[in-house]
Amino acid sequence: MKLNTLFNPRSIAIIGASNSPGKVGFTLTKNMIECGYSGEIYPINPGAEEIQGLKCYPSVLDVSSEIDLVVIAIPANRVLNVVEECGRKGVKALIIISAGFKEAGREGAILEKKLVEICHKYGMRLQGPNCLGIIDTITPINLSFARTMPKRGGIGFISQSGALGTAVLDWAIKEEIGISSFISLGNKADLDEVEFIEAMGEREEVKVILLYLESIERGQKFIEIAKKIVKKKPIIVLKGGVSTAGARAAGSHTGALVGSFIAYRTAFKKAGVIFAESVEELFNYASAFVEQPLPGNGGVAIVTNAGGPGILVTDLCEKLGVPLATLSKTTRQELASKLPSAASLGNPIDILGDAMADRYEFALEKTLQDDSVNSVIVLLTPQAMTESMGTAEKIVEIRKKRPNKPILTVFMGGYSVNEASTYLKDNKIPCYDFPEKAVKTISTMLEYSRILGLEEEQVERFTDVDKARVEIIFQNARIDKRNVLLPHEAAEAVEAYGINVPKIRVARTSEEAIKFADELGYPIVLKIVSPDILHKTDIGGVVLNLKSPEEVRISFEEIMSRVSQFMPHARIYGIMVYKMLPSGREMIVGMSRDVQFGPLLMFGLGGIYVNILKDVSFGLAPLTKYEVDKMVEDTKAYTLLKGIRGEPPSDIQALKETILRVSQFILDFPQILEMDINPIIVYQEGRGCIALDVKITLTLD
Amino acid sequence: MKLNTLFNPRSIAIIGASNSPGKVGFTLTKNMIECGYSGEIYPINPGAEEIQGLKCYPSVLDVSSEIDLVVIAIPANRVLNVVEECGRKGVKALIIISAGFKEAGREGAILEKKLVEICHKYGMRLQGPNCLGIIDTITPINLSFARTMPKRGGIGFISQSGALGTAVLDWAIKEEIGISSFISLGNKADLDEVEFIEAMGEREEVKVILLYLESIERGQKFIEIAKKIVKKKPIIVLKGGVSTAGARAAGSHTGALVGSFIAYRTAFKKAGVIFAESVEELFNYASAFVEQPLPGNGGVAIVTNAGGPGILVTDLCEKLGVPLATLSKTTRQELASKLPSAASLGNPIDILGDAMADRYEFALEKTLQDDSVNSVIVLLTPQAMTESMGTAEKIVEIRKKRPNKPILTVFMGGYSVNEASTYLKDNKIPCYDFPEKAVKTISTMLEYSRILGLEEEQVERFTDVDKARVEIIFQNARIDKRNVLLPHEAAEAVEAYGINVPKIRVARTSEEAIKFADELGYPIVLKIVSPDILHKTDIGGVVLNLKSPEEVRISFEEIMSRVSQFMPHARIYGIMVYKMLPSGREMIVGMSRDVQFGPLLMFGLGGIYVNILKDVSFGLAPLTKYEVDKMVEDTKAYTLLKGIRGEPPSDIQALKETILRVSQFILDFPQILEMDINPIIVYQEGRGCIALDVKITLTLD
Repeated sequence: MKLNTLFNPRSIAIIGASNSPGKVGFTLTKNMIECGYSGEIYPINPGAEEIQGLKCYPSVLDVSSEIDLVVIAIPANRVLNVVEECGRKGVKALIIISAGFKEAGREGAILEKKLVEICHKYGMRLQGPNCLGIIDTITPINLSFARTMPKRGGIGFISQSGALGTAVLDWAIKEEIGISSFISLGNKADLDEVEFIEAMGEREEVKVILLYLESIERGQKFIEIAKKIVKKKPIIVLKGGVSTAGARAAGSHTGALVGSFIAYRTAFKKAGVIFAESVEELFNYASAFVEQPLPGNGGVAIVTNAGGPGILVTDLCEKLGVPLATLSKTTRQELASKLPSAASLGNPIDILGDAMADRYEFALEKTLQDDSVNSVIVLLTPQAMTESMGTAEKIVEIRKKRPNKPILTVFMGGYSVNEASTYLKDNKIPCYDFPEKAVKTISTMLEYSRILGLEEEQVERFTDVDKARVEIIFQNARIDKRNVLLPHEAAEAVEAYGINVPKIRVARTSEEAIKFADELGYPIVLKIVSPDILHKTDIGGVVLNLKSPEEVRISFEEIMSRVSQFMPHARIYGIMVYKMLPSGREMIVGMSRDVQFGPLLMFGLGGIYVNILKDVSFGLAPLTKYEVDKMVEDTKAYTLLKGIRGEPPSDIQALKETILRVSQFILDFPQILEMDINPIIVYQEGRGCIALDVKITLTLD
Repeated sequence: MKLNTLFNPRSIAIIGASNSPGKVGFTLTKNMIECGYSGEIYPINPGAEEIQGLKCYPSVLDVSSEIDLVVIAIPANRVLNVVEECGRKGVKALIIISAGFKEAGREGAILEKKLVEICHKYGMRLQGPNCLGIIDTITPINLSFARTMPKRGGIGFISQSGALGTAVLDWAIKEEIGISSFISLGNKADLDEVEFIEAMGEREEVKVILLYLESIERGQKFIEIAKKIVKKKPIIVLKGGVSTAGARAAGSHTGALVGSFIAYRTAFKKAGVIFAESVEELFNYASAFVEQPLPGNGGVAIVTNAGGPGILVTDLCEKLGVPLATLSKTTRQELASKLPSAASLGNPIDILGDAMADRYEFALEKTLQDDSVNSVIVLLTPQAMTESMGTAEKIVEIRKKRPNKPILTVFMGGYSVNEASTYLKDNKIPCYDFPEKAVKTISTMLEYSRILGLEEEQVERFTDVDKARVEIIFQNARIDKRNVLLPHEAAEAVEAYGINVPKIRVARTSEEAIKFADELGYPIVLKIVSPDILHKTDIGGVVLNLKSPEEVRISFEEIMSRVSQFMPHARIYGIMVYKMLPSGREMIVGMSRDVQFGPLLMFGLGGIYVNILKDVSFGLAPLTKYEVDKMVEDTKAYTLLKGIRGEPPSDIQALKETILRVSQFILDFPQILEMDINPIIVYQEGRGCIALDVKITLTLD
């Protein structure tokens, strides 16, 4: 179903409608009557004949006409009955305001389950329960507690917290920010953010979608839908509940480094959803997207009447990676021809403290004409000669003449710029009191331009993989009642997916070890194979750099004797024999499965530093080539891989291919709970990389 | 001189006073007349008999009474004459508004120099030139362009940017933020921020000092004075011009990692000055400091009527390291006795959406009584039953009864909380529209409490140092026309300061090398000594792990032959011979000299990763023990040094002592321009550390 019934119902019934001020059903009815809704409103209340001037019905079944949408605000224990009636009546959609469901404990959860069953039975969709309703300023409808409707506008706002939603609406009313629709998600028993994003994506009046979310249950669906919608309009999210306190204890490096917050951020990045760090940012970004064109190529130009604030803006641009425009020679000459000689023609363009409205007009116009400029920040501080209001008027005029590049303004101060600031906002020019906000907003707009510019990329599949071989390895481990694979098993499994690993043999006797060593070539490494010994080095279970059969023999026996001495009860599967590898850059590639979003891949600097330096980046499978590029480039280790201090670059291509193969591997085998390749040794360009130590943990079932 | 004459002059002359609106001298005179100043005002203008109702004089020399303070607003080329007259008149202090001095180029700079000379000759102090004057609401005086005076209050504000200063004043007027004094620094030809900080530190009415600075010239004096003042009142700084674009090219790792921004931040930290990232933060912090007591021990309690925003606050607390209070059992019981059963008694304390003023009152009061609570954030979202204004009134009442813990409020929304929010601010309770601001403010207050709690610590001097030996090494390098010391020279120099280095010999022949090797013990490292070879490893100038005299002989000759082949013109001082060191944790200790603040020490993870991972921290010499503790603890490498995954801890004590010795070393020898010890190898606890590779660069003179 398209959710049009919710945003634009032809008729509405209010169950629990009331004549007593203070009751929820009173406010809902009053708001609907007053909001200018043109469809039919049916108050439902068995105890009244008439409510707020409208004929009242005992039940929806007593209404003879069709009812599109029903809003319910009666105690939870009576909800199931009326919902059943709604179903029989053929109602299309419900909004349940009533609390007392899942959020209230076990009994409420059972009630909620029954509720959803009834809705499914009759094909009704449900918003809530335990929600604060819906507002749509286009239709219009106001099925919420908000006493005043916000101004009409291009923002669609979906909030998981009712209280936060109300507070933000209230703020939007004060700031005269235009809202098209507001949705309170409540318990998300049926409809969730994914469906509302999709619906708002289709509503033309919505120019930008804002989300306040505390949780996402259908992670992969969220990514799929959001990815599609962001190509049409920006989605900006503020995520509550990011504390790492809840981060899971995990057995792998990747698992230990991945908090749920990282999974969310990675998912938002994958979907092209913009991340806001505060409610204020959410709306600063939204206003700019609604009111301004997107910046194209080039950089930001800053026109200012004061040096100090100009420096602040320049600093912030550098900090946030916002490129400053280099003005063309022509622009500089034109500026020079009319501006006072003391003016600074670089960028920031300082038109001096005595700049009046005409000088701002001239500089802004010339700057907007320059092809290297993709956006302009106009900065004004109130000085003796400053004409705040006159300048604001000129900016609005120029905006009309030149609508194709964003203009943001920062009118610093309060008292003397108040009127001008309001005038600008009324005329759809974002105006901030401090420079930080303008720069952060431009930075976000650039980010969205980048997202729009991305080509849709298909995930490529490698065909040179041997799925059956991996299945057998996993089955054998299951038979052996092990969910952590032995190192040589794990190596064999990834090798079946085209990942380069050392040739590993497992010897049970020293004679066998020597035979393998002769076959593999010296120098040799021996390593004990046992599911019960975690820190193999500590008990002397690893010996490196053995150069002769004799050394292999001696070390083999020494390892066995140490192990039987220190860990007499450990299960011993033998000793791994492999040729010692030349050194290279040690990286880590890992995977941890996120409950909401599925397999989360990690890449970064490997070895013992991984947990301390945390130089890692993340991506959700399936990874595209572009995403792998980004993952690798987002680490500091990338600098190392590119080659520093005259060292040759590492084989980044081979590394990236390995990450892509891991992505396919863990998608093909959902029974892999987590895995680490640490280290994966990356050699010089053209010489590949090799997964030295592979750890795979399977799910427990 | 105490700067009292500036803040509280008995009489004022205005040179350039005028009757023409639009002229600076008009505004200054008008503002002084209207601000309520009780002393004498003498307009000076040879062309008028009377100005704005006051008798006007041709020159200060024509005024018969004494003049404390003269403000000058006439063109730059006429300033010197009148300043000379002021000197002859015995004026104590000048404020020069006029521009056209150093900021205008070479001629202006000469003019400014002469200006300062005249001031010095007569013992006059000078604010400016090219400044926007002074305001003091306590005296009161208004020698500025600000048309309206800000409200009286506890904030002293010093701004290097006149325009930013004006904008901020203008904003303070709108927001009704109380200001005691405002100073525009201008060109700082004579008086600078250091003197004004000192003066504001002494003025009782000033409760907190705010600074907007673009540069500090007297860095060490700044630290000295600020350190003294912050024990009396907080200093908060916003620094403009933080771009790294200006970071110097440098020959050492330390130099390369140190931007001027880092030097400033390190200096602020050393002085206990609080760093703000935006103008808004500057004032949010300031208001809280002026209006609220400081938090003591314990944690923050959050009282909220909504879950979602409560989560946002908890997240932010965790992110900023603000501890949340764990409420006592008694408090929880008392809360439980009266709050609805669905209320959450953890922290955040969720008193539910239907909380009216009395429930807020009860919860806030109980929470403030709990000894484990050091501050409370009251969060309100406007819901159906919410009494914003009633709640605000209760909060103000409780504040009066319980004045000893900070209460910050976040009233989210706009429209319905506007009145309440204004009421709170009028009654000195900080009220924010979004939760972020409250948490950042609490975090800053906690930081200041910590600063106040620090004990004054003397820098200890090591006496077991051999200054003369270092002098000789440096002199020999100078004689040899080298400003980069050879590695063995550098090692010897730091050894003279009690820093552990390997025993190094420089051999000129293979026989000598073998002799040294036998004496030092095997395995041996050979390394070419030449000021002309930077990347010694690349040309095969380093050979490790030589196990016999024969290996030493062969390698010695191979090195010599490779060097003469690849770099035939390099000056060769011989080959360094030293015993190979066991491996340990590789760290870096370095120093780079900052123009403003002097020797800046760096500590962090060493080796080839240093430039990539940038896991480093900084401190300004001389370092106290506390500062070294902080430096070491501030790096991620600290986790490594403490011992991870069952590994034994490293000798952190020995490392810290080395850093303290380096601090003394570089203070004793100002001719050291930069130095790196990379790596310094740190061994297991009790086994010390050793400076393996020491690089010292002397100044060029």
